[in-house]
Amino acid sequence: MLDAREAWARSKARDADIKAWAWLPEELAYPPASDLQGPLAGAGLGVKDVIDVAGMPTRSGSPATSAEPARWDAACVTQLRAAGAVPIGKTVTAEFAYASPGPTRNPRLATHTPGGSSSGSAAAVAAGMVDIALGTQTGGSMIRPAAFCGVVGFKPTFGRVHRQGMSVLCDSLDTIGWFSRTVSQSQAVASVLLPRGEPQPEPARAPRVALLGCETIGQLDAASRQALDDCVARLQEQGATVAAPVLDADLQSLLHIHTQTMLAELARGLQPLARSAQAGLMSPVLREAVKRGLDIPHADYARLQRARERLSREWRLRFGEVDFIVTPSAPGPAPAGLQSTGSSVFNRVWSLLGWPALHLPTAVTDMGLPVGVQWVALPDQDHSLLGWAARNAGQSMHTGTN
Amino acid sequence: MLDAREAWARSKARDADIKAWAWLPEELAYPPASDLQGPLAGAGLGVKDVIDVAGMPTRSGSPATSAEPARWDAACVTQLRAAGAVPIGKTVTAEFAYASPGPTRNPRLATHTPGGSSSGSAAAVAAGMVDIALGTQTGGSMIRPAAFCGVVGFKPTFGRVHRQGMSVLCDSLDTIGWFSRTVSQSQAVASVLLPRGEPQPEPARAPRVALLGCETIGQLDAASRQALDDCVARLQEQGATVAAPVLDADLQSLLHIHTQTMLAELARGLQPLARSAQAGLMSPVLREAVKRGLDIPHADYARLQRARERLSREWRLRFGEVDFIVTPSAPGPAPAGLQSTGSSVFNRVWSLLGWPALHLPTAVTDMGLPVGVQWVALPDQDHSLLGWAARNAGQSMHTGTN
Repeated sequence: MLDAREAWARSKARDADIKAWAWLPEELAYPPASDLQGPLAGAGLGVKDVIDVAGMPTRSGSPATSAEPARWDAACVTQLRAAGAVPIGKTVTAEFAYASPGPTRNPRLATHTPGGSSSGSAAAVAAGMVDIALGTQTGGSMIRPAAFCGVVGFKPTFGRVHRQGMSVLCDSLDTIGWFSRTVSQSQAVASVLLPRGEPQPEPARAPRVALLGCETIGQLDAASRQALDDCVARLQEQGATVAAPVLDADLQSLLHIHTQTMLAELARGLQPLARSAQAGLMSPVLREAVKRGLDIPHADYARLQRARERLSREWRLRFGEVDFIVTPSAPGPAPAGLQSTGSSVFNRVWSLLGWPALHLPTAVTDMGLPVGVQWVALPDQDHSLLGWAARNAGQSMHTGTN
Repeated sequence: MLDAREAWARSKARDADIKAWAWLPEELAYPPASDLQGPLAGAGLGVKDVIDVAGMPTRSGSPATSAEPARWDAACVTQLRAAGAVPIGKTVTAEFAYASPGPTRNPRLATHTPGGSSSGSAAAVAAGMVDIALGTQTGGSMIRPAAFCGVVGFKPTFGRVHRQGMSVLCDSLDTIGWFSRTVSQSQAVASVLLPRGEPQPEPARAPRVALLGCETIGQLDAASRQALDDCVARLQEQGATVAAPVLDADLQSLLHIHTQTMLAELARGLQPLARSAQAGLMSPVLREAVKRGLDIPHADYARLQRARERLSREWRLRFGEVDFIVTPSAPGPAPAGLQSTGSSVFNRVWSLLGWPALHLPTAVTDMGLPVGVQWVALPDQDHSLLGWAARNAGQSMHTGTN
């Protein structure tokens, strides 16, 4: 993997155009070789600026936060450091990992959004400045920027990566994940943050796959539709069985529950800021979200959580025999403009359920913008999901390097 | 409720003996009357020192933490402030809300433990220094000190009080709760932190109750056994139907899952400290817990979470027709000595399940130490549980005031 010194030098050289970094040190503190043992030995690591790195500020994309450096690494940063990774800086996030974007540009086409909220991490990997970078997802904040930037993005099962040292936006949704150039790099990070008890042999058979086109919740453009069809065709060529269950009503319910849950939780979390003298430093879109969230009565919130649990149980049974689900990552390639980070409509169901989700880049459009597909598995099938993807990757991955 | 100015004055006067406060300001910042509107107008509030209050340090019972004042209130403190409460200081917690106790003494008998980890909050209410105080529970850190100090302690449904601004020990267990002198004060706090959509009429009938003696997981002394029997007898006199299901194997499984979950999560959360130059500032008991937790493979942890979800589902069905469960709070009154905070064996099952739990003080022993009972309800039955307790409180509560 790209060494931290090289990663830092490339970042310094290229970031004026990309603006992936919220904070890069003037000099890199490179540890002695004896500290660089493990599966990630020496690898440069980008860290989304809602996750603490000791000695670096955590600004969460907001001028209302403190510029004081963090005292401790977040738990996940400690784990990665112990495996040899070297955090080289903090990557740009949308304001409090919600919607209002930072300055980052899409390395594939600078006039287009990199997606968000983990904009800087996805862009830094896409631009070849680091091979691995941490992000978070509450709605679509990992999978969407991975799709728009054309890198591998992995959001593990909810609750499995400890969030100590991460700024919480929505307690029941926020999940720490990571970007990488390849699936095998993503597996290397998973081996550290989701350590296995014992190695699990890959099943020597073709996978059982479910296809969820999600047509009723969002429209796919031609390139993304093609990416989905191609992925399914390739899997079928390899002997996969592909079922296509129709779950329109469930999908709509899950999306609605996600919207309300996210608003109610972010509103309670950001209330201290919204009621403070610094409230004026919040973006209008964030202020409006807090206002909407505070209007949701607790009783409604509680009822939605019960519905969420019921659907979660039903879906676990429904997909119990499936190795993974193939479904869109985004409605199309990165939209033009930097004012919006694009739609998360195909990601939020999996954030709500807490199931592991993986973006695989598979093609580029004529304009040079990446498209790909999302693979999803049942809770705690993280390693299995990555394993199926690794087996498939040789034939299907398309990751340009800039 | 006890006014913040009076609360602060009493705390200053009495705390040399009790040591409930980790931090009390030299002067109280008392807001103008126009800011003191709402159900808690002017009430002094104690805040466990793992929860941020703007302008006060958050030390988490550890010299390894920063002495810098917090920049923001925690979300729950903001909500209480908006309802008129005035935080007067930070209360003593066991080290990182785990096991190693602070200096707090039991206001009922100074040679005995106040329980932990929310030691200072329970003691401050018991000593009449404040009427309401925030705590947290991961194992038994609310219900146990409430029992030992003889105050009302309420741990709501997991996930319903936002934890922004609280130091996370165990992500899937930590729950913010509160202590009070009376059930109606606890209801006033609940109306703020768990706002109802619309008022729910109390059912005009006697309750359906389940009695869980939990004999196979812990031994009860005579006074606590008597408190449990008296409570059940009183409920039956009032027409309650009381069933006593036998769930020994489940209880043992749930306890085991709790132990492993708590160790695995706290170890990941405290790894940054344990690997740092300040590791020497950790207590031996905490260092050992981190070591044990890191030895739990992720695959084991994931398997235990699946078992937890299954048992949680089964128990929800099993107790679906019950208004509340009556079960011990603690094996007996507060043990002598300040080295240990006592046993949490009767609390941990409810922390694992995330069900709301309430401690009701009902009697005192000849030595003057309080005993009582724990009432538990299904998730999101928080207001109903408090309502049943309020109806019962007139006849059964025993809360001395010092």
